Amino acid sequence: MIRKTRLFTPGPTPLLPAAQFAMAAADIHHRTPEFRAMYTRVLAQLKEFVGTKNDVIILSSSGTGAMEASVSNLTSPGDRVLVLTAGKFGERWTALAKAFGCEVDVVSAPYGQTFSLDQIKAALKLETRVVFMQSSETSTGVRHCVPAVAELLKDTHSEALLVVDAITGLGTTHLDMDALGVDVLIGGSQKAVMIPPGLSYLAVSQRAWDRMEASYNPRYYFDLRKERKNAKLGESAYTPAVALIAALAAALDWIAAQADGDLAAGRKKLIENAETVSAMTRAAVQALGMTLFAPDAPSAAATAVLPPVGVDSGVIVKELKSRFGAIITNGQGEMKGQIFRIAHLGFFDFMDTIAIIGALEQVVAKSLPSPGFAFGNGLIAAQKVFAERSAAAAAESPCLCGRTDACCSLKHADVGASATLVGAK
Amino acid sequence: MIRKTRLFTPGPTPLLPAAQFAMAAADIHHRTPEFRAMYTRVLAQLKEFVGTKNDVIILSSSGTGAMEASVSNLTSPGDRVLVLTAGKFGERWTALAKAFGCEVDVVSAPYGQTFSLDQIKAALKLETRVVFMQSSETSTGVRHCVPAVAELLKDTHSEALLVVDAITGLGTTHLDMDALGVDVLIGGSQKAVMIPPGLSYLAVSQRAWDRMEASYNPRYYFDLRKERKNAKLGESAYTPAVALIAALAAALDWIAAQADGDLAAGRKKLIENAETVSAMTRAAVQALGMTLFAPDAPSAAATAVLPPVGVDSGVIVKELKSRFGAIITNGQGEMKGQIFRIAHLGFFDFMDTIAIIGALEQVVAKSLPSPGFAFGNGLIAAQKVFAERSAAAAAESPCLCGRTDACCSLKHADVGASATLVGAK
Repeated sequence: MIRKTRLFTPGPTPLLPAAQFAMAAADIHHRTPEFRAMYTRVLAQLKEFVGTKNDVIILSSSGTGAMEASVSNLTSPGDRVLVLTAGKFGERWTALAKAFGCEVDVVSAPYGQTFSLDQIKAALKLETRVVFMQSSETSTGVRHCVPAVAELLKDTHSEALLVVDAITGLGTTHLDMDALGVDVLIGGSQKAVMIPPGLSYLAVSQRAWDRMEASYNPRYYFDLRKERKNAKLGESAYTPAVALIAALAAALDWIAAQADGDLAAGRKKLIENAETVSAMTRAAVQALGMTLFAPDAPSAAATAVLPPVGVDSGVIVKELKSRFGAIITNGQGEMKGQIFRIAHLGFFDFMDTIAIIGALEQVVAKSLPSPGFAFGNGLIAAQKVFAERSAAAAAESPCLCGRTDACCSLKHADVGASATLVGAK
Repeated sequence: MIRKTRLFTPGPTPLLPAAQFAMAAADIHHRTPEFRAMYTRVLAQLKEFVGTKNDVIILSSSGTGAMEASVSNLTSPGDRVLVLTAGKFGERWTALAKAFGCEVDVVSAPYGQTFSLDQIKAALKLETRVVFMQSSETSTGVRHCVPAVAELLKDTHSEALLVVDAITGLGTTHLDMDALGVDVLIGGSQKAVMIPPGLSYLAVSQRAWDRMEASYNPRYYFDLRKERKNAKLGESAYTPAVALIAALAAALDWIAAQADGDLAAGRKKLIENAETVSAMTRAAVQALGMTLFAPDAPSAAATAVLPPVGVDSGVIVKELKSRFGAIITNGQGEMKGQIFRIAHLGFFDFMDTIAIIGALEQVVAKSLPSPGFAFGNGLIAAQKVFAERSAAAAAESPCLCGRTDACCSLKHADVGASATLVGAK
């Protein structure tokens, strides 16, 4: 059989064709008016996409580079910081803060769970300078509650900065950075924006810019103040990954085009898409007799699943690849062999989702035969979730023209008129 | 929801990425050694792909151009020819033969069926010069039996040439042109070879080359003798579609690579792929309560389906596109509204097939609700077909190394050794 290679990994995610074409055509120099026009536009678009009025900085680095930048720019050796962790990426905050000489307090929750506000309250100290956390912990498929943490800090420790790794949280979670008072929000290119790895971006609050002036950890390539100064001139401080920036511009154009040019509304659509796709997947794996690793706080970025007892999750990963060309991910670090993860963030649609569930059924049927298994159990569960969500979405919109405002007088019953409207779209 | 656009049409078919890249890079002139090397190689590859020792000619035209070439090069005004037709493409043979002044006898079968040998026997005349037919009638999803017609002609009318439009038959049907004695076999680029429209190709027997010397219908752009002469020098007579030829070379390389460099074996794999995908689809639509339009002689190129009674097939076509981005085709000509067609030839895999069936279930559930409908009926049927075929394919190979010859002593039971072999592949 033909096997097309398909990524179902939580980064890199499948590439948007429009971004691929833009990347292939990006034959421009980075110290020219052409580049400056593109870069200036992308920075403005990113602000809209992130949903912030704060300045956004792009780095030619992986997401970890932006994580390091927020540590090296906002802390000084000896600063006390708090890391909230429940997985591999939370642990990376600890490692980074220690590498830059911080005194690190840690609130941790078991893998597959999130921490409680009481834990955080107990760990916060008067001298806590920065709190670091993830929005979505990609290694376990858990969503942490950024709004609750932001509110707690505002109420009790308003001097502490809140730095959020939203690398897989952006485009999968509704996060109003400015209203919540998040100080740094970090994203990556190979995630919901559907382009290859190589870029990270940070939205930075005024409080954080001010903090940078006083902090004195060493930084050079990741000096955000220098990047900010250059960005105002339409350039990056060092040679940027030009093709990826062209791809990002095309991807943001595409996201905006999904919502009549409104990037914030386009991001909302991306989030709803990830929510539907993840809900289909969660229903399917449970109907196939498997268990969710993060049932209480599932991230819409990726679903982590416990394979049947006694089965190494690597078997499922390998069989999906060798038999169907579908690339999913094993657990990371100590979770290797314990869970497998299927991604939902970015460029996935209904048909991708049905397809990966169909392939998973074939793998379960062949590799893990059990008396209770029947073909279709997972697919039927996913089909029903999709049908219910489609019906709910249709019910929300009182009119086939898509408008929900009261001034629209065309109702669903008005079939003739609305059919014309739909046809004219 | 995100909706990726996906072609499920029997031409153009989904593009092979390797061919897309080759096409984008094809910045060469057609009167250079570089082009001549590529063209010569493609012509040799096409012979292997078609499975013939005859010369193969490439035309920069649609498949209809190659059909016209076989009429204009092989007939003279007043020649008596026989057309076997059971659909829109059969009718095209009649129209072409008449346009070039032939006396046309016609054997026809109702749409959705194939003709009988008795019909053909009765229609053949002593003076019949050429018989024209399809291998796969794309408009109705019917497979005609080329071997039976070829044998009949050999036995009773050995002077008549047999011209087969295999535009959707190549890569979906096992056709041994040389052994059968087919005189012209026609293919198109936007079919099983997985590249865009714009090229057609013809394999031509020595008998047919000889006939051309005596026939005197007018031809210029489609003069096959001129193309043959130029092809021997590595060129085409007129400016060729260079990018498509580069794409074809890449596609044929890819097909060969599926079978350790053996293009004929690669073609066999393509055919088996189409057979599995079409069998999954046939099982699914029937399990969803719909009827096959061509149950007795289904083509593996495309499945034609009768929608539920009273439903216009155009509704299904439209809903699949607007809700899921999946492009299938309506019936053509008088069959419009009566059937819909889902393609299987070329670059389709298991996951594509499960996905289109899942989308079809959603359309049936919403647009054509019936008390008997249940989500999963189509998907389960397809899953079972795939699992049975996978098991059968595994059983055919007595050894995990993939060899079936007696000299291979590693058996399935020999798990340790064979696991090593598989890993080493």
